[in-house]
Amino acid sequence: MGINLTNFLSSKSKNKRMMEFQDLDHIDGVSISTVSANLYKDTRDDLVMFYFRDGASHASVYTQSKIISENIKWNLKQKVKKVSSLLVNARNANCFTGIQGYKSLEKIAEKLSEKLTAKQKEDDDKPRKIIKKEILFGCTGTIGEIFPEEKIVNQIDNLVSKINYTQNKYIWMKAALGIMTTDTQPKMAMEECKIGNSEIKIFGIAKGSGMIQPNMATTLSYIFTDADIPNDILKKLLKKNVETTFNAISCDSDTSTNDMISIFSTGKIKHSKINNINDEKLKEFDFSLNKVLLNLSKRVVADGEGASKFVTINVQNCKTENDAKKIGFSIANSPLVKTAISGEDPNWGRIVMAIGKSNVPINLEKLSIKFGNLFIVQNGKFNSNYSEDEASEYMKNDTIEISVDIGNGSKNFTVYTMDLTKKYIEINSDYRS
Amino acid sequence: MGINLTNFLSSKSKNKRMMEFQDLDHIDGVSISTVSANLYKDTRDDLVMFYFRDGASHASVYTQSKIISENIKWNLKQKVKKVSSLLVNARNANCFTGIQGYKSLEKIAEKLSEKLTAKQKEDDDKPRKIIKKEILFGCTGTIGEIFPEEKIVNQIDNLVSKINYTQNKYIWMKAALGIMTTDTQPKMAMEECKIGNSEIKIFGIAKGSGMIQPNMATTLSYIFTDADIPNDILKKLLKKNVETTFNAISCDSDTSTNDMISIFSTGKIKHSKINNINDEKLKEFDFSLNKVLLNLSKRVVADGEGASKFVTINVQNCKTENDAKKIGFSIANSPLVKTAISGEDPNWGRIVMAIGKSNVPINLEKLSIKFGNLFIVQNGKFNSNYSEDEASEYMKNDTIEISVDIGNGSKNFTVYTMDLTKKYIEINSDYRS
Repeated sequence: MGINLTNFLSSKSKNKRMMEFQDLDHIDGVSISTVSANLYKDTRDDLVMFYFRDGASHASVYTQSKIISENIKWNLKQKVKKVSSLLVNARNANCFTGIQGYKSLEKIAEKLSEKLTAKQKEDDDKPRKIIKKEILFGCTGTIGEIFPEEKIVNQIDNLVSKINYTQNKYIWMKAALGIMTTDTQPKMAMEECKIGNSEIKIFGIAKGSGMIQPNMATTLSYIFTDADIPNDILKKLLKKNVETTFNAISCDSDTSTNDMISIFSTGKIKHSKINNINDEKLKEFDFSLNKVLLNLSKRVVADGEGASKFVTINVQNCKTENDAKKIGFSIANSPLVKTAISGEDPNWGRIVMAIGKSNVPINLEKLSIKFGNLFIVQNGKFNSNYSEDEASEYMKNDTIEISVDIGNGSKNFTVYTMDLTKKYIEINSDYRS
Repeated sequence: MGINLTNFLSSKSKNKRMMEFQDLDHIDGVSISTVSANLYKDTRDDLVMFYFRDGASHASVYTQSKIISENIKWNLKQKVKKVSSLLVNARNANCFTGIQGYKSLEKIAEKLSEKLTAKQKEDDDKPRKIIKKEILFGCTGTIGEIFPEEKIVNQIDNLVSKINYTQNKYIWMKAALGIMTTDTQPKMAMEECKIGNSEIKIFGIAKGSGMIQPNMATTLSYIFTDADIPNDILKKLLKKNVETTFNAISCDSDTSTNDMISIFSTGKIKHSKINNINDEKLKEFDFSLNKVLLNLSKRVVADGEGASKFVTINVQNCKTENDAKKIGFSIANSPLVKTAISGEDPNWGRIVMAIGKSNVPINLEKLSIKFGNLFIVQNGKFNSNYSEDEASEYMKNDTIEISVDIGNGSKNFTVYTMDLTKKYIEINSDYRS
């Protein structure tokens, strides 16, 4: 993976830690345990538990696929005010595993909730009884293999014994590594902001388009904050900000059965109560949450299978945002555009083709296309100053920006993607073994 | 291109010539001229003229792209009862060429119609005056390059001088070669059938997913028959039969600005008049036209860029044909499915993923999936007799059949596609030069 991550991370960020790897440190109310349950042939960590000692408000968004994994079915059924734990395993997607897969989760939740209740009694002045409903699951890996219930159950004592109420950068790195499948890099991001006068942290980890035994790319992303925000507002914030971040990226147009993005709010930092999403006090938090999600989603793209270039596609001045999105994804998902980029070919004819097939009405006389700052087409006319040499030089960059102005309105959308390389084929055509 | 074409061409065909290359011979009322207009660097034929001495009824279907080439704009404007010529050039798509591209066609049509009128005076007892409106154009090649009007105009005398009223297999082969871009094989097909007691021929040529200087895959297909069928019925026949042939194939999900499929009916064979599409006498013709179109569209897929395997996807028992089509294309266009096939990996989890993302409601308990004759999933349950070794062995074939039974209705659709290989990336990432 030859893409320099710092190139595409906003240089405008005030946060000095907005570098290759940000150091996530302590966040109050979250405890992380990672173990190897031997789900892989080697002994890498493959099971990660997040424990919320005093519970956490929570919201999740899930895959749009009509076939969903058993853990998503489980999560959707649990309606509680506060969750106590999120358990994530790699290697097995728990999809197409039927009733066995679902019942396994129930057994794991039962045992884990018992052990966590016992842990409460040991450690807490006012111990809570933790119930199965308060446990959520994230799964990623191969579809249609029996879910390894026993291997996971056998690690519960181990996970609980590793609970530590102070987190540091190493444990966050271990968590980000533990949820990886064939990602080549762990993905972490953080921002700090204020709600009123209180300093708030927003930490996040993600995994992306890598595979366990090549099967499919599943996106998992988990965000943690010490702010105190209720479930319904978390849900609105997450949905809104996912739209322009994780829903604005595409690696290969395929959609997993297991995609899951969640936010957990421990409420450990006191600030005045947030009653609705339009609350002025939420502005900075909203902005910072977007930055964390965008940072993570860009990392997912940059580490996309076989990616050699990170591509930003700005679609401007459409009638509706949906039109801009359609055009953006039509370009981002075109194998012909993606291969041209991997070949460092400023092949703008393919951009025209991809705009055409997006099914959005186009007035050619208003269309403009730029590679970086180089105008190729301006108001429907081929730019007479266009230099193919200059454009070819531009295409050698690690990060490519394509801008398309439709000249038909005022709505914009930006899509992030990567190129399509021989390496992608290599990774995905290898036999599962 | 290692796919053995005979494998996938219907073995049930009674026509013994339904082999690798069928010998198309004479068809009354059509004359073919091919020349090199030096549109390429070498001197291959790149300009093909079909001349209908006594005119021909005609119907075309065009690309669904919102950006269409200038020749398609031209063709859509010409409303005549009979057309006199179709002129096809390779190398330049005449797309994004603006008013220059359109006016060039007008000039070419003007000169060609004059010359053909002169030819009529020379050769025919009752010479017709041929007008520009009777000339149609097919273009394929690079987008956004100035249309080579002069080079083409300069070849008109040459094209007209080559008119020969008797066709043979060599001239058909030259025509099929002349419209190629980077196709590796010319594509021809034929059927013979009866309308009433009259013997009718249906000949066709096509070009597919190859590129001139890598730009995009344009499908052109031209069908010729000596039957006597009026424009409106030709249109209905063509639309209906394209649905299950050229609209049932996908190489890489990209759509050209120049796609064009036409049928020309010279009316040289006398038979009783056809008044509507439901006419019993048309049944055999309808069936044979479908076979020609299916044969050609399969050849386009088999010669798809970098293809190493020809893949048939049968989607069965859906609520609507549209649902079946959505699922079929979701599987056919999934890069993860296509790379698994190129890797000879019976990775059925990716089939499940592609079904899920098609947005069609699925009852997993009714889902069945087969590779060839091997049941992998049957009524939602993993087949206990499934042997991965057997499935891996099956995946080594040149032609792969994937069957998906949704168990939710009675409608079917079959999609044809190919695998996604490193060769595809190689072809499409090469710099245009």
